[in-house]
Amino acid sequence: MSLRALFFAFAAVLTTTTFADEGMWTFDNLPRDAMKAKYGFNPDQAWVDRVMHASVNLGGCSASMISPEGLVLTNHHCVAGCLQQISSAKKNYLQDGFLARKREEELQCPATEVSRLEQITDMTKEMSTATKGLVGEAYKNAQNAMSAKLAADCVGDKKDTVRCNVVTLYQGGQYHLYRYHRFSDVRLVWAPEDAAPNFGGDPDNFNFPRYGLDAAMLRAYENGKPAVVKDYFPFSSSGAKTDELVFTAGNPGRTNRALTVSQLETLRDVRLINIMRRGYEFRGVLTQYAKLGTEQARVSYNDLFFLENGLKVASGELAALQSPDLMARKRAEEASLRAFVAANPELKAEAYGAWDAITRAQAVLRETVNEYDAIEGVRAFNTRYFGLARTLVRASVEIVKPNGDRLPEFASARLPLVERQLFSPAPIYPEFEKLKLEFALTKLRETLGTDHPFVVQILGKESPEQAAKRLVDGTKLGDPTYRKALWQGDSAAIEKSDDAFLKLAREIDVQARAIRKRYENEVSAVEQKNAELIAKARFAQLGTKVYPDATGTLRLSFGAVQGWMERGKPVAPFTDFAGAFNRNTGAEPYALPALWLQSKGKINLAQNYNFVTSNDIIGGNSGSPMINRNAEIVGLAFDGNVHSHGGSFWFDSAVNRTIGVTSGGILEALKNIYGATELLAEIKGK
Amino acid sequence: MSLRALFFAFAAVLTTTTFADEGMWTFDNLPRDAMKAKYGFNPDQAWVDRVMHASVNLGGCSASMISPEGLVLTNHHCVAGCLQQISSAKKNYLQDGFLARKREEELQCPATEVSRLEQITDMTKEMSTATKGLVGEAYKNAQNAMSAKLAADCVGDKKDTVRCNVVTLYQGGQYHLYRYHRFSDVRLVWAPEDAAPNFGGDPDNFNFPRYGLDAAMLRAYENGKPAVVKDYFPFSSSGAKTDELVFTAGNPGRTNRALTVSQLETLRDVRLINIMRRGYEFRGVLTQYAKLGTEQARVSYNDLFFLENGLKVASGELAALQSPDLMARKRAEEASLRAFVAANPELKAEAYGAWDAITRAQAVLRETVNEYDAIEGVRAFNTRYFGLARTLVRASVEIVKPNGDRLPEFASARLPLVERQLFSPAPIYPEFEKLKLEFALTKLRETLGTDHPFVVQILGKESPEQAAKRLVDGTKLGDPTYRKALWQGDSAAIEKSDDAFLKLAREIDVQARAIRKRYENEVSAVEQKNAELIAKARFAQLGTKVYPDATGTLRLSFGAVQGWMERGKPVAPFTDFAGAFNRNTGAEPYALPALWLQSKGKINLAQNYNFVTSNDIIGGNSGSPMINRNAEIVGLAFDGNVHSHGGSFWFDSAVNRTIGVTSGGILEALKNIYGATELLAEIKGK
Repeated sequence: MSLRALFFAFAAVLTTTTFADEGMWTFDNLPRDAMKAKYGFNPDQAWVDRVMHASVNLGGCSASMISPEGLVLTNHHCVAGCLQQISSAKKNYLQDGFLARKREEELQCPATEVSRLEQITDMTKEMSTATKGLVGEAYKNAQNAMSAKLAADCVGDKKDTVRCNVVTLYQGGQYHLYRYHRFSDVRLVWAPEDAAPNFGGDPDNFNFPRYGLDAAMLRAYENGKPAVVKDYFPFSSSGAKTDELVFTAGNPGRTNRALTVSQLETLRDVRLINIMRRGYEFRGVLTQYAKLGTEQARVSYNDLFFLENGLKVASGELAALQSPDLMARKRAEEASLRAFVAANPELKAEAYGAWDAITRAQAVLRETVNEYDAIEGVRAFNTRYFGLARTLVRASVEIVKPNGDRLPEFASARLPLVERQLFSPAPIYPEFEKLKLEFALTKLRETLGTDHPFVVQILGKESPEQAAKRLVDGTKLGDPTYRKALWQGDSAAIEKSDDAFLKLAREIDVQARAIRKRYENEVSAVEQKNAELIAKARFAQLGTKVYPDATGTLRLSFGAVQGWMERGKPVAPFTDFAGAFNRNTGAEPYALPALWLQSKGKINLAQNYNFVTSNDIIGGNSGSPMINRNAEIVGLAFDGNVHSHGGSFWFDSAVNRTIGVTSGGILEALKNIYGATELLAEIKGK
Repeated sequence: MSLRALFFAFAAVLTTTTFADEGMWTFDNLPRDAMKAKYGFNPDQAWVDRVMHASVNLGGCSASMISPEGLVLTNHHCVAGCLQQISSAKKNYLQDGFLARKREEELQCPATEVSRLEQITDMTKEMSTATKGLVGEAYKNAQNAMSAKLAADCVGDKKDTVRCNVVTLYQGGQYHLYRYHRFSDVRLVWAPEDAAPNFGGDPDNFNFPRYGLDAAMLRAYENGKPAVVKDYFPFSSSGAKTDELVFTAGNPGRTNRALTVSQLETLRDVRLINIMRRGYEFRGVLTQYAKLGTEQARVSYNDLFFLENGLKVASGELAALQSPDLMARKRAEEASLRAFVAANPELKAEAYGAWDAITRAQAVLRETVNEYDAIEGVRAFNTRYFGLARTLVRASVEIVKPNGDRLPEFASARLPLVERQLFSPAPIYPEFEKLKLEFALTKLRETLGTDHPFVVQILGKESPEQAAKRLVDGTKLGDPTYRKALWQGDSAAIEKSDDAFLKLAREIDVQARAIRKRYENEVSAVEQKNAELIAKARFAQLGTKVYPDATGTLRLSFGAVQGWMERGKPVAPFTDFAGAFNRNTGAEPYALPALWLQSKGKINLAQNYNFVTSNDIIGGNSGSPMINRNAEIVGLAFDGNVHSHGGSFWFDSAVNRTIGVTSGGILEALKNIYGATELLAEIKGK
């Protein structure tokens, strides 16, 4: 806590004098003046287009093309899902790593898709016209219908290769249509043994100095052959130096910088506390489960990894929101904007009540959030079986409706994604699903109470353990063939099935939809509608040279290679391979892989390995290329430092740092540890 | 959350109009006027003395004498520690219950002591004189020395039968010397199977309607014979009716009603979050450990039970502190008192800076709390072995010092307690201790960071798992004979021992004492010194007809049998045995014991079973007798309702309720389920 307190005190002093490398900028609105003023760099359109097209989206992660033959660079933790899905009790790719020495050895990732942003079109007018004068349910429905229409028109008949989304920017200040090129055949090329990227494990996560090779490579295929791509990033031959300008191009998932004070309070008092109360307990469950044996450890690996990561984020965000400095600044900004609105009669008439409307929606949220999360948010049924069952049950009802009337997740432009998830051959492990479901049902009873009608309906006379066993033993949804048959067959088969999870999903659907409707109409529609008004007021106050909160879509950030001051001491921006060997204890999670220990003599121990920059990134940016002004790879972003958690709410350039693997570190490992001669040749364009 | 929000909104309206049954009153300052005004009852001194002497302390729990032969009534969960200690892999008294049909069958509880408050002496003047003009370390040392002296003088040469403590009341507004009669030979008489008291388990804990037989009986012995006691509570023949006046006499552990706003914020932002972050994860660990087998479940039972209970308390307290209404009221009260102080020149000179001083101490607390908790508070070494090792290591240094110079826990008056813990034959289970220690070491690394010098010192090249194994495998402290020999032998044996835990305790003692000193001088001494000043100001403002925060010592509360309104619906004050059978699902934790199912035909199902009253109690009151105006048992307090968590900070008579087993419910169970003929005869005085 003390560090956190120091951090904000420090920040408060500096923000007025430092010119911050702040912002996750959309490619159609780059801060050219700021970049030019601070770094003397003003890219031409060709540079911008090339960077936009060489940077790709990996669904929750970022990545980039690094060869003309579709070679993709991303983080190891971004391919961990694939590694687990293609592993089995006999072969553990997470633990052992993988290297394809020939194209034919590359292994298909069953649920992975790479998409490249091709075009951005402003649809703010279309969306505003569609929802004009509407509130609550009518507002939500009109918005869904217009989004579905715009996306469907954009995809046209090219659903195999095109993906389109309407993206809500500036909390509704702008609506843009993003068109992507899809690469749906993606194969694994290289992944190190998990002990290399995850060296330091949870203790070192979000910390620096750091020594992690959080890198992996995939290849995009089209028509069974490596994709031919025009735009890609070559590796820099020298990497980046201290203070050098560096960009990240990636897909930051979510920031909350424009939330109102009442929304931040909800996050602090309700959402983050709920996440922690549930998440820490589940962490205890998973760590003990993993101790039962090698197979249990393998099967639960990714769940535990991402849970621990999420808990660090939640803890860090909570600490940031508990800081009086942060809340004081948010209150001051809000007061300033409201005063600005109040001084302008037209704005006042339209937007002055927006904050109070959002505050009232928070009261409904606090009242309904536990039921919403459990029943519609499926926290009560945390098992992959239930997710599949709900998709099938709802799809059978939704898909027969006109596109604009469907639940948005079943709009025609979204169906390829639905099918990809339904048909994924990734294995499901019944015993592990029982564990997760039993925990979820226990928490359901704890959260809503034993006597809540929904709890009574679900558990009846059973304990959570008994119910979980009955449900998992009574389903065939683990079989992708069965799911495919249901999806492609008559919807009556789904409506009549006595599969335990299909029955469950059917039986609770009325209640789930009812609570969703209330939540959407009284909370999220109110938040969105009024956030739009606030966003417009903010444009009026600050102009349009501001960046929108992160939305999981492509953004550019600029910054420099730079350490920071921690409790009065400087943290140097680079680590090296020697440091990794110094930190090696041989005991988990500080045990370097055997191959590293064997290769030590060959490694240039002075080669830089991990580094920090002042780029403004957040979760979702994992795997972002870090490039220099020549659009060459100088690093691969994989984490932020401990101060980056506050980045959800503000950017403090004094201490918030991006952590990456240096380009030289990746090349060194490929060459002298993994002997990946062919890959090196491809990367170097030889 | 919604319920919590409603609760406070409701409370804000009512507190001005309702005359609250508020207060945990010391026996020398009962609210006679209030009791008389509301209930027409003004007890004579004989009544007060009798109630005081019939109510006893069980060390963290409350209890009462219910027969002239030392029969003691308390909660099942207050004897759970004893039940676990006398159990083994072959015989599980927690699961099976116990009934002694003859005195000779009664089983000694190895670590249990019953103490009866005999006398209260005001020592405020002595303590104030001792610390006059002192601050920081000098203040703390003078206070410790005077406390040690007063207690030692009070015990004299009767340490086997007398225990004395200086109790800090009103945050230092008063210091009273409490003299107790000790009963150190305590034996188990009756405990039901755990499934009866713990029916509903964690889900029903702190909830009502409720169906738990949380009752058990012990017997105090003296000189190998049942203790002869003059004052005891007979059972009421009819029990209490709705709206009837009821008292609880017990030992509430801790309330925080007089804390300053900055202290409440520390509790909200630091302490409770830390408890939850660690506690929920450990709950996950323990639930999975308990699934490994019957023996693991038995060994971890009490740890899990009390952990879950503590987590519900922490969650409830956090929710209360997040309520804007509560904090607004606390701020208003603080502002009012400060204004009162500011208006009086003499008070102003003395006390006006007290709040700011406490606020400054909070900053030190936030900076040091993690190190303090881990190193001095032994969170880093959560195993009974370490506690024993530290006691032996410190005792070897402390006991040779003059009484007034010792760490307070080694003052002469405290040594019988130290010996009781050291010599306890209660078994210690090495595998379970490894689990706890591994978790604690993992959390140590997580909290302070891998590179913290203390973490490096403790773990070196080991993982938490390896270190825990080495330490537990390298100790003989599980053997009480070995501990006794070390305690009674030459202190050099402790100083030279290569026992793994003794070595560890020695090696970290300098650091641990240093951080304790800083914490005590800069945090707790500052808080105490200034809380004294605030307390005096509060006396000046409100008079002396106020009650002090709970201090784990004997208090009387008055109230009435009364339900409450929950979300607009009335909750009736009584449940009955029929309800327990209705709630029985046969699945844990809603499975009534086999004996109950067999006995159903004999049980009067309409007999009332659990009930709620408007008494003001808190944790530590467990086992408190609930008596009527004739000082007859009408119930046995064992819990509060969900609104009682807010009771840590304020008392809301509209919704805060005590939960008890009715006297009739206990008698019914003894008669028609347990067939405890002899006990019934003793209770009924036949």
